[in-house]
Amino acid sequence: MKLSRNSEAMQFSPIRKFNPIATEVENSGVKIYHLNIGQPDVKTPECFAAAVNAYDEDVLAYQQSQGDINFLEAVCDYYRREYGIEYKPTDIVVTMGASEALTMTFTTILDPGDEVLIAEPFYSNYCTFVLTTGGVVRPIPTTSTEGYRYASKERLEAVISDKTKAIVCINPGNPTGLALTPEEMETVADFAIEHDLWLIADEAYREYVYDGMKPHSFANIDRISDRLIVIDSVSKRFSACGARIGFAASKNEDYITGIIKLAQSRLCVSTIDQIGSAELFKLPHSYYEEMNKEYCGRRDAAYEEIMQIPDVICHKPGGAFYMMIDLPIDDAEDFLMFLLTEYRDNNETVMFAPAGGFYATPGKGKSEIRIAYVLEKEYIKRACELIRTGLEAYMAKNVQE
Amino acid sequence: MKLSRNSEAMQFSPIRKFNPIATEVENSGVKIYHLNIGQPDVKTPECFAAAVNAYDEDVLAYQQSQGDINFLEAVCDYYRREYGIEYKPTDIVVTMGASEALTMTFTTILDPGDEVLIAEPFYSNYCTFVLTTGGVVRPIPTTSTEGYRYASKERLEAVISDKTKAIVCINPGNPTGLALTPEEMETVADFAIEHDLWLIADEAYREYVYDGMKPHSFANIDRISDRLIVIDSVSKRFSACGARIGFAASKNEDYITGIIKLAQSRLCVSTIDQIGSAELFKLPHSYYEEMNKEYCGRRDAAYEEIMQIPDVICHKPGGAFYMMIDLPIDDAEDFLMFLLTEYRDNNETVMFAPAGGFYATPGKGKSEIRIAYVLEKEYIKRACELIRTGLEAYMAKNVQE
Repeated sequence: MKLSRNSEAMQFSPIRKFNPIATEVENSGVKIYHLNIGQPDVKTPECFAAAVNAYDEDVLAYQQSQGDINFLEAVCDYYRREYGIEYKPTDIVVTMGASEALTMTFTTILDPGDEVLIAEPFYSNYCTFVLTTGGVVRPIPTTSTEGYRYASKERLEAVISDKTKAIVCINPGNPTGLALTPEEMETVADFAIEHDLWLIADEAYREYVYDGMKPHSFANIDRISDRLIVIDSVSKRFSACGARIGFAASKNEDYITGIIKLAQSRLCVSTIDQIGSAELFKLPHSYYEEMNKEYCGRRDAAYEEIMQIPDVICHKPGGAFYMMIDLPIDDAEDFLMFLLTEYRDNNETVMFAPAGGFYATPGKGKSEIRIAYVLEKEYIKRACELIRTGLEAYMAKNVQE
Repeated sequence: MKLSRNSEAMQFSPIRKFNPIATEVENSGVKIYHLNIGQPDVKTPECFAAAVNAYDEDVLAYQQSQGDINFLEAVCDYYRREYGIEYKPTDIVVTMGASEALTMTFTTILDPGDEVLIAEPFYSNYCTFVLTTGGVVRPIPTTSTEGYRYASKERLEAVISDKTKAIVCINPGNPTGLALTPEEMETVADFAIEHDLWLIADEAYREYVYDGMKPHSFANIDRISDRLIVIDSVSKRFSACGARIGFAASKNEDYITGIIKLAQSRLCVSTIDQIGSAELFKLPHSYYEEMNKEYCGRRDAAYEEIMQIPDVICHKPGGAFYMMIDLPIDDAEDFLMFLLTEYRDNNETVMFAPAGGFYATPGKGKSEIRIAYVLEKEYIKRACELIRTGLEAYMAKNVQE
């Protein structure tokens, strides 16, 4: 039986493919520090479970396709309170995580062959989301030495074509941790207007910007409101990845009309997860400050340790909870296999995401890795130390061979 | 800003489009009996909420992309226990309702232009699921006078083309309530083999077959195991529509490999809904018997009342909880508008789904309606009485005009 060409062209998650080996290693009694996946160890706020447990309807019924009105209103209140942005419940469509919002968005706006610009390296599942529609990802090249900055007119103009339909900004960035400056956001906005593009702003890490930067959204730029689609989620902001609650927000009525057709076709999103998630968006501003401080401390701990590696290239990332590290090696996958299968320090080792999987351009990113600083500071320090000492052992072994 | 051609071609849910009018009518104090949507009034078994409330992890984390192993094992146990079918957890992928399973399935097997056969009338969201991939729905025509039967060699051969890639059987059927006989299932199986087609069996209502028929699955037919994809869900079987837990099951390893790429791209399905749903599949056989008896009683009550309508065409449906009724009118949508906006009996009225929306062929099904017998017997009787008396008033009015 034959599968579709799009299915054949899709890749397995490059982050997840080392998991079976890791599981085997862990079953043998070795401790692995997991910096390979963006699964925070932060407690989910208790209001989520409290609201879910208080739910006592006899029949667990369908919700509205667009979303539970209480959730939609909680989201609107959050945008108004935290950012002064005026969304109405009718501007928002609840989805199963940001992932479904993105698949639905590309289905709504892309014809086969249409191109989507996105700075490379990028969250690799975008390839699948775009390929589902027969669309094409067109990467905007960046370099580790420039800290993966991409939002200049020249760099954007260099990749435009008559097939370009949209530009995606994951901001703050995954996997780079790059936080766009307000000026860079304006540059992207002008570019989208000039070339009549949709601007898809994936802002799941919005509150995680450091070094005195103030969180802000592309939705704060009024002149792009008709072409802007904001993608958001409770997963990272509230450490509620398993709730699978995300949403798309836009003031473009045609887009909302289009995405609601898809939302209706799959009826609705989980009723109880929406009830729990509505409470998350009612958390006070102090919650974001607390989380921001926590992740900033982790970033600093990671960065300090990583910068002790000779010949490393690493820009201290301004946001999210990811850090890209360009190592003096040829093949990060080979290094990861060494860490998983050979290297042990006090019966411990470490796991990261080899960054080649975040590049659509073949052969790129082979010396780079991504770490997610999702563990407590002390563990992060230890994990980064294991990368450093593991690298020493890896290089010593390679010299010998 | 332009949307995609596929998005423009998609339709709003024909079932849901009368909802805003109904809400207005209800707000004015009129009681509406809702036979228009498959949302049962049956209590969700308490084991679901009990399991969700017992969940006490600090971090609501991602689940495996393929699904929670406890849920997968509970599903395998159910298939083994109830049907003697041997699925392994690796044969199953958990999805957000049957809807996501279907969208992912078509993305995995269809190239643009590929055709999917399905008996018409059919659950209208299939059009959107197929259109997402650029595929084409090719209806198998049926008639109300023949009770919508379609599974004969002649009828199937009449719609095959060199673009046909799959045949879908919603069995028992939505909207028809048609339950295929074992012989008809064999006919479909042979047809799929002869023309090398995928067979997609949407069996969300599997246990709801009446009049002495024994529930069975296409997965009981061994010779099609390599081309069979079973779509299933907790929604209707356990009155847990809001859980949004469905799955695809297949022994075709290439298909499972393909759909897992899509499953990985959206990370996972709700953690707590899977925990609750695992318990549902542990319910004893007596649960299905009890539910079957309940729905059979409702069907009989509805049928008895409906058959009092002069010149009605209605075959007593053998399964699911839907009944198609061919009325002596020209336009079921016009009749529904009359019921919603003009007809009142004791300040009550009734809502059904006009069946035109279940036909892909323009102009078909205009005199037909679908009712979902999802309310208690007494309410079903009253609701069907309102269809009958409402029709009398509608016809009297039309004669006057």
